[in-house]
Amino acid sequence: MFKEIIQPRFNETDALGHINNTVLTMWFEGARDPIFKLFTPDLDTKQWRLILASISVQFKAELFYGRPVELRTGISKVGNSSFEVLQQAWQNGQCCAEGTAVLVHYDFIAKQKKLLSAEQKAALSQHLLSAS
Amino acid sequence: MFKEIIQPRFNETDALGHINNTVLTMWFEGARDPIFKLFTPDLDTKQWRLILASISVQFKAELFYGRPVELRTGISKVGNSSFEVLQQAWQNGQCCAEGTAVLVHYDFIAKQKKLLSAEQKAALSQHLLSAS
Amino acid sequence: MFKEIIQPRFNETDALGHINNTVLTMWFEGARDPIFKLFTPDLDTKQWRLILASISVQFKAELFYGRPVELRTGISKVGNSSFEVLQQAWQNGQCCAEGTAVLVHYDFIAKQKKLLSAEQKAALSQHLLSAS
Amino acid sequence: MFKEIIQPRFNETDALGHINNTVLTMWFEGARDPIFKLFTPDLDTKQWRLILASISVQFKAELFYGRPVELRTGISKVGNSSFEVLQQAWQNGQCCAEGTAVLVHYDFIAKQKKLLSAEQKAALSQHLLSAS
Repeated sequence: MFKEIIQPRFNETDALGHINNTVLTMWFEGARDPIFKLFTPDLDTKQWRLILASISVQFKAELFYGRPVELRTGISKVGNSSFEVLQQAWQNGQCCAEGTAVLVHYDFIAKQKKLLSAEQKAALSQHLLSAS
Repeated sequence: MFKEIIQPRFNETDALGHINNTVLTMWFEGARDPIFKLFTPDLDTKQWRLILASISVQFKAELFYGRPVELRTGISKVGNSSFEVLQQAWQNGQCCAEGTAVLVHYDFIAKQKKLLSAEQKAALSQHLLSAS
Repeated sequence: MFKEIIQPRFNETDALGHINNTVLTMWFEGARDPIFKLFTPDLDTKQWRLILASISVQFKAELFYGRPVELRTGISKVGNSSFEVLQQAWQNGQCCAEGTAVLVHYDFIAKQKKLLSAEQKAALSQHLLSAS
Repeated sequence: MFKEIIQPRFNETDALGHINNTVLTMWFEGARDPIFKLFTPDLDTKQWRLILASISVQFKAELFYGRPVELRTGISKVGNSSFEVLQQAWQNGQCCAEGTAVLVHYDFIAKQKKLLSAEQKAALSQHLLSAS
């Protein structure tokens, strides 16, 4: 599991006084960097090898500005050409939001999905995480 | 079903050259205004009556800057105190992304969920939409 | 002068209850599309011909969610290889924010600025706007 | 001067392959937290004491995803009821963007600006920074 600490930004709040729900998708995408690096080690976007099939977020408790958030990222499923990333946002010792992202190994030139290699599956499997 | 036409903004693209996935959650939240108005007709955020339990988005095709997008919004499920909104983003005659949002009728003072009234259920049921 | 009407989105508010200041830069960039089209008519980002040298925004009054905003865009200065765009956000009959963006005509292959042609200067000069 | 290291997020890029200009205003607002704390130590947005009069950003070099950014924040001017914050974004040893924000000491109940106290002026003056 990968962990990253971020500071919520003032502009990420909304008129209800807490972090807006849409922000979680940006935090989670940012925290997928270690996963992206398994496919594009230097994160060069011209050498990208993944596309996103779906995302979901469950909101369990409010998140607030002014206190750090720990983002936890791991792999919850590995398929033949795709895999699922499981992510959590923790604040004050509580899992406040949990989400998934299904990523597909993709050939941007041939414009089609591509089988995950045995090495890629093994690399992903080193970071397994279960839903809370 | 509610329809709204928007113009994707330059800043909503990403380095892969298309609209970034996280943008869909902002477009869809914006397009839920007609649903929010069923609960707070003037959209006064101090009189808010809904919280968000979960969101999901499925990405079916790339969305691009420079061409209008039609956002379609309807209700896919009505429960006792919550309901599911189904939303689609269409560009060039194609449904490029489809998402759901589960909203809970909520009492912000008592800090607990609240049953939907018969009138609210009837109002929501006038905007039913099925997944594509 | 170009005019565009937008609906502020719920996620564009912040914890102070109004539209967050950073949102203006996104609205204004979105509203520069007609200017961008003078250089790249189909808005193809692979044929881009402008870079941004600076932006500024003055905040004159609060902007709120739930009411339409009219964005006004014009040209305030035309130089040899750059020009200044002047933009305003109006709500309820009031100019609530005003901003400028200095754009430079740029050759992305040679990686250097490029003189504006007489035709480009003339096209820009058809949309002059003065600060309020 | 305050320093903060952030990781650019994938969604902060745009179709030109670099960090979109509007993102700088969000990074800089986030990096103003230490300044906000001089007025609201716990960052409780219900006890806010500042409004924003203007922002500006000068873009000096491209910023990229995949490499850390150092945000530097200091005070460039102290007036009677307002002050100017100067901020820079450094990547690979280069100042890539520099911006200012003019903040006004504000009484949200009386809805009017308020003189800075001698203590507040002294606190601000401990963090002076000059433009590059």
